[in-house]
Amino acid sequence: MEQTTVAFLGPAASFSHQAAVEFFGSSAELSPRVSFADAFAAVQQGEADYAIIPCENSTNGSVVQTLDLLADPNDTYKDVEVCGVHYLRVHHCLLARRSVITSQRDYGSVTKLYTHPQAWGQCEGFLGIHFRGIERQDVSSTSKAGELVSKEETERSAAIASRFAAEFHGLDVLEENIEDKADNTTRFLVLRNMKSERTGLQFFGGLNSRRVQGLSPSASAARKTLISFMVRQNTPGALAEALLIFKSHGMNLTSINSRPSQKKNWQYVFLVECQTANSVGDKSAAVEILHDLQSVTETCRHLGTWSE
Amino acid sequence: MEQTTVAFLGPAASFSHQAAVEFFGSSAELSPRVSFADAFAAVQQGEADYAIIPCENSTNGSVVQTLDLLADPNDTYKDVEVCGVHYLRVHHCLLARRSVITSQRDYGSVTKLYTHPQAWGQCEGFLGIHFRGIERQDVSSTSKAGELVSKEETERSAAIASRFAAEFHGLDVLEENIEDKADNTTRFLVLRNMKSERTGLQFFGGLNSRRVQGLSPSASAARKTLISFMVRQNTPGALAEALLIFKSHGMNLTSINSRPSQKKNWQYVFLVECQTANSVGDKSAAVEILHDLQSVTETCRHLGTWSE
Repeated sequence: MEQTTVAFLGPAASFSHQAAVEFFGSSAELSPRVSFADAFAAVQQGEADYAIIPCENSTNGSVVQTLDLLADPNDTYKDVEVCGVHYLRVHHCLLARRSVITSQRDYGSVTKLYTHPQAWGQCEGFLGIHFRGIERQDVSSTSKAGELVSKEETERSAAIASRFAAEFHGLDVLEENIEDKADNTTRFLVLRNMKSERTGLQFFGGLNSRRVQGLSPSASAARKTLISFMVRQNTPGALAEALLIFKSHGMNLTSINSRPSQKKNWQYVFLVECQTANSVGDKSAAVEILHDLQSVTETCRHLGTWSE
Repeated sequence: MEQTTVAFLGPAASFSHQAAVEFFGSSAELSPRVSFADAFAAVQQGEADYAIIPCENSTNGSVVQTLDLLADPNDTYKDVEVCGVHYLRVHHCLLARRSVITSQRDYGSVTKLYTHPQAWGQCEGFLGIHFRGIERQDVSSTSKAGELVSKEETERSAAIASRFAAEFHGLDVLEENIEDKADNTTRFLVLRNMKSERTGLQFFGGLNSRRVQGLSPSASAARKTLISFMVRQNTPGALAEALLIFKSHGMNLTSINSRPSQKKNWQYVFLVECQTANSVGDKSAAVEILHDLQSVTETCRHLGTWSE
């Protein structure tokens, strides 16, 4: 069987890369992309079987670029659907070249730190104790920070990045879990092309099917459905009416996000996640909800059903 | 009467500064703050009568930092409420020192451009035609870009910033409305301290009361109410039940946002804007909604009622 291809936001050793390895295993062909839009396009155009894309972080909330791509006002990714999720614990580590720091916690000689701007804020406690006043250099990703440190020859620098990036770039992990919040977690969506027979059927044979939860529902796991819609403007009560439709089909709302429609100012695409109480019949419930939504919305779309 | 004080996100000549001048007029004392949190704190602690804070842009959607401050999980700003809104058209201009460019559209001699990273993306069309390949320098705000250009003595540089910033920094406007989307608009919230008698009563005398729309309702304008709540976790249907309460009190939902509660992972604070059909009795409706929400939510709060 042909190898499964998975698109993710690069560079290599990014958190998305780690999520792809955790979810699909090492036998899949992992294809780094320069943007989330590129990863969506790869699935739409059949260049990749799947994409794995962060949609939400437990501390920072929704990833709005991902919501905008799911909202998809111009039907650019009309065949892309969500078929699974993966939760990745975000752990930061302090990394350096093998020779730079020999004894444990001898950080006095480090002259420079590299990481992504967000990571400084997530490791304030640790940095405040050990690295007060040390020069900080922003870079475009934590993985890039690891790469820069691995290539330096003269400077005594260190990076804040994942253990995964340490292994990839051949760096030592001096300290693990230096983040302030121990339970910082990112939720990734797994995307497929709904027209692909390969990912709908063939996939089970090649990979650990347990992992592709959307395709192998377990009775115990909650199954979730994602639906997007745009209410008619200047129609009072349209949003409440649309949300009531979910309830009338036995679906509980678990999250709601809104993004600008990009068509008219102050018109929104709503992205609603919902689940049934009984974990069965949710695909047919989605069909019925879509049918009813058509009468109160300008556009609506079923974006997938999967097991959490 | 004492002068009205208004906190806004600086530096001087920022879009927030412009919104403050448009809304409160030039007689108010405008107090720049280093962050949105500082502006909220100024109102909470009575250092400022009002704050004016961007909450949403027609292209980019919600300003999540503002939503997080409104969600206010630790009651840090418990007396801050919304009392009005202001819509600011975001226009970008090309600015330079008086002597640098003499003839209209003679841009060939410009060697360097300054602006905020977001503004490059908003002016792609214009930049692609006139400034292909010219060095671009990111700065922390469009106003800062104007300031830097105004202080340069040797280089032939230009800034992308507002006409307001041009006037403030004494620069020439070479070209107006260079943004790709002509109707790019930011919605600002006006905040007050609900315990302040001064802003509740005295304010009318000193300023153009028409502008403080939340305090001088007009019969024709829609009145909106903002309510936040956190549903109980693991209570299926709790979100739908909470939203139904709005409907049962005659309130139409106009927008919903969710932000992480910062207390437990995957628990959210929902921020719901709503309005009555008849524009009367919305304050008492808010009280009744709050009463009913208490039985299905962990926390809930009325964040203000104002005229749009």
